[in-house]
Amino acid sequence: MATEKNSNGYEGLLPLCLRWLKPIFAKLSTVSVKLATMAKKLAKDDSRRVVHALKVGLAISLVSLLYYFKPLYDGFGTSTMWAIVTVIVVFEFSVGGTLGRGLNRVMATLLAGGLGFGTHYLASLGGDTGRPIILALFVFILASVSTFTRFFPKIKARYDYGLLILILTFCMVSLSGYRDEEIAKLALSRILTILIGCCVTLIVCIFVRPVWAGTDLHCLVANNIQSLALFFQGFGAEFFGLSQEGEVSNDDMQKYRTILNSKSNEESLTNLARWEPRHGKFRYRHPWKQYLKIGSLNRECAYRLELLNGYLKTNQFQMPSQQIHGQFKEECMKICSESSRGLRELALALRKMVLPLTAKSHIEKAKIAAENLKSHLEEWRFEEVNNAMEIVQVVSLASLLFDTICCIEKIVDSVQELASMAGFKAVEVQSSVAPEQQMDLQDQDQYALQPLSHGAAVLLAHHAITIDEQSPC
Amino acid sequence: MATEKNSNGYEGLLPLCLRWLKPIFAKLSTVSVKLATMAKKLAKDDSRRVVHALKVGLAISLVSLLYYFKPLYDGFGTSTMWAIVTVIVVFEFSVGGTLGRGLNRVMATLLAGGLGFGTHYLASLGGDTGRPIILALFVFILASVSTFTRFFPKIKARYDYGLLILILTFCMVSLSGYRDEEIAKLALSRILTILIGCCVTLIVCIFVRPVWAGTDLHCLVANNIQSLALFFQGFGAEFFGLSQEGEVSNDDMQKYRTILNSKSNEESLTNLARWEPRHGKFRYRHPWKQYLKIGSLNRECAYRLELLNGYLKTNQFQMPSQQIHGQFKEECMKICSESSRGLRELALALRKMVLPLTAKSHIEKAKIAAENLKSHLEEWRFEEVNNAMEIVQVVSLASLLFDTICCIEKIVDSVQELASMAGFKAVEVQSSVAPEQQMDLQDQDQYALQPLSHGAAVLLAHHAITIDEQSPC
Repeated sequence: MATEKNSNGYEGLLPLCLRWLKPIFAKLSTVSVKLATMAKKLAKDDSRRVVHALKVGLAISLVSLLYYFKPLYDGFGTSTMWAIVTVIVVFEFSVGGTLGRGLNRVMATLLAGGLGFGTHYLASLGGDTGRPIILALFVFILASVSTFTRFFPKIKARYDYGLLILILTFCMVSLSGYRDEEIAKLALSRILTILIGCCVTLIVCIFVRPVWAGTDLHCLVANNIQSLALFFQGFGAEFFGLSQEGEVSNDDMQKYRTILNSKSNEESLTNLARWEPRHGKFRYRHPWKQYLKIGSLNRECAYRLELLNGYLKTNQFQMPSQQIHGQFKEECMKICSESSRGLRELALALRKMVLPLTAKSHIEKAKIAAENLKSHLEEWRFEEVNNAMEIVQVVSLASLLFDTICCIEKIVDSVQELASMAGFKAVEVQSSVAPEQQMDLQDQDQYALQPLSHGAAVLLAHHAITIDEQSPC
Repeated sequence: MATEKNSNGYEGLLPLCLRWLKPIFAKLSTVSVKLATMAKKLAKDDSRRVVHALKVGLAISLVSLLYYFKPLYDGFGTSTMWAIVTVIVVFEFSVGGTLGRGLNRVMATLLAGGLGFGTHYLASLGGDTGRPIILALFVFILASVSTFTRFFPKIKARYDYGLLILILTFCMVSLSGYRDEEIAKLALSRILTILIGCCVTLIVCIFVRPVWAGTDLHCLVANNIQSLALFFQGFGAEFFGLSQEGEVSNDDMQKYRTILNSKSNEESLTNLARWEPRHGKFRYRHPWKQYLKIGSLNRECAYRLELLNGYLKTNQFQMPSQQIHGQFKEECMKICSESSRGLRELALALRKMVLPLTAKSHIEKAKIAAENLKSHLEEWRFEEVNNAMEIVQVVSLASLLFDTICCIEKIVDSVQELASMAGFKAVEVQSSVAPEQQMDLQDQDQYALQPLSHGAAVLLAHHAITIDEQSPC
């Protein structure tokens, strides 16, 4: 038999095939395991992705009911297809995206339909020879002008899809009109099916676990401020060799790096958020553009952190000798811990959408520490210093820290501006001793860097912020 | 008459209307003037935009010929529409974008068509009651799985559009099959018209002034390196108050700021470039990913320039007193001018796609100057210094310059890596005296910062690069 090994040493056909197929199957199984792991990670990172996929399936299934019920299908005929197409191309991850695309599609279809009819009528005046020429001319002009219009940055951000649909529908109406006299009836059923598609999409998108681009933008900016805080907390701990409880992991510290390239993400979320209606604590005209300003300041700060991070990576930094060390360490630690605390409270206040009452005072303290450091540096008698490189490093680190604090101050100011624009509430201090006083006492005694775990941060902020405030993040 | 002013003081109807309409017309004319100015600027900044708009018009006009010729139209019927739709949605600005979308559309249509037929057959086995249930189930599963798959970053980058078309076509084939028995004929004509649309689009896109994403990426990265060079040239000139001929304008100096947020642009161009066939000097498997590496190093460098730029803005920098001033200025100027020269030659070599032979030596010289500066700083007797703040500023500026040079060195290395991966040619030195020697002579005599105009840079590089090399930028 072919499956047995022949006496002359040749293998049978089946084992040969199996031998060939085995590595292929092995590879396939490796790939599918890899894919499954990635899918699991994607789903775990943001479970809304799975929900979104199911929502799209649901919306399409709902619209496809039009096909299954004979009376509905007979009414719309082949136009039923447009309901399905609309759901598929309009359904976006966020409500803002879906609303934007839906409005673009409906408005562009109506506008292009009107223009198409006009062109159709105009062309019919041209007789049998003039007709194709007039049509071709109008199609060429509209397509070229609309395509060029898509290059305007502001139009591209909000109406890009609408312009595409404008060209598409205009061509379909004006050209199909050339042969089809039932165009009016067709156009009506097409617009109806598009409207049905849009409505089903919006209902599913808004009422089944909605994803608001505005909330995402708000939380993104708050999280970015939190990442800056984590860096300072970790920098203080790692650089000065203090590892207390609530230490920041290296991954947490490096989170600030995502801020460096967050611009395009923030811009697109802002554009989407502007389509969204009032939701949660966000009013209809929430100052979305202010988030771009805060985001840009966050990036300015992150550029500086990138350099500070360089000090950690090189390991070339020589700690200054003892007589400088004490003052230097103390002030630097104070700068790091106060900056971290201020930013953390700012992030928390932004998350909870309340006025950031205490953040500014922390940054003021960090500034005072920076000024002290500056005057210490000025008072040093440099002849006492053993190694000049020591000074170079100490001074450039200090200078970078000054610069970063100025940046952080601007972030605090712009968040306060946002808070007043959006009418965030000031929440009363509940504790009998103001947290400021507590900290001042501690400061006089001995100031130590206190890395705060997330729980501790909430506890600290609890003095200033009532618990019942519901955070959108 | 109503148009005349009545005796009781009321104006007539027409003047009233005119008074109302006047500001509206005035506003309209302001807006249109503004729009025209913007359009002119957009067209002037990149004339390829106008060409692209005209190309889209041309492609649509060509495809609409299918409508005008009765025999063609009778063959395809209503499917003719799909040729137009295909042109409109597939035609992108760059060849890579168009090819990517076209391939996605064709492959997804074929795959979804096959799956749709399969589902249609399977559903027909279920009888009249089982059919809609089976169909709805398959549609739901395919739509959900495909939508979730669009979240995989690598798939999103290249096959996002294909997955959209997959869902769309699958629904159309499987659902329309429910009522329409002529589905096979319809599918054939639809695929044919889609192919016709893709072919027309590609022909117009590739043969009428093509825009290659690969070339754009290449030039973007080269221009970014050039912007870094311009900053150094301008920084040296502005900071040390030297304004010689060929001075860099402030706008040119600030060009580096676009690098800070160039990541998403570079990534999308890289994805598009990977669809493109061999063109110009770019081979089929050009190492596009290396551009991402260079781009990321450019950004690292730009973060540092952002801080250097801060020194120019604040005006708080005190020039060190005379005894330090001489050494400090000389070395800093050397760092700036050598960095600028090295980067400029690197950008030029990249543009011309030749090996960057001399760039490295400039950077080496800048490094030597930085080392000298470092040892000067170490040798300073600090008690001689009048003001301690002077040291803080000098030292932190110097430290930032060291750091930046390390960054630039990495850029040079990664461009050299690209050059060897892509097989850039080494071009012989034509001049009898090597430019290195010329510069060394100059160095010994007196080193002065020499801002180079663009023409001068080309002249300088002429020693190393033959003129007949055609630059793709």
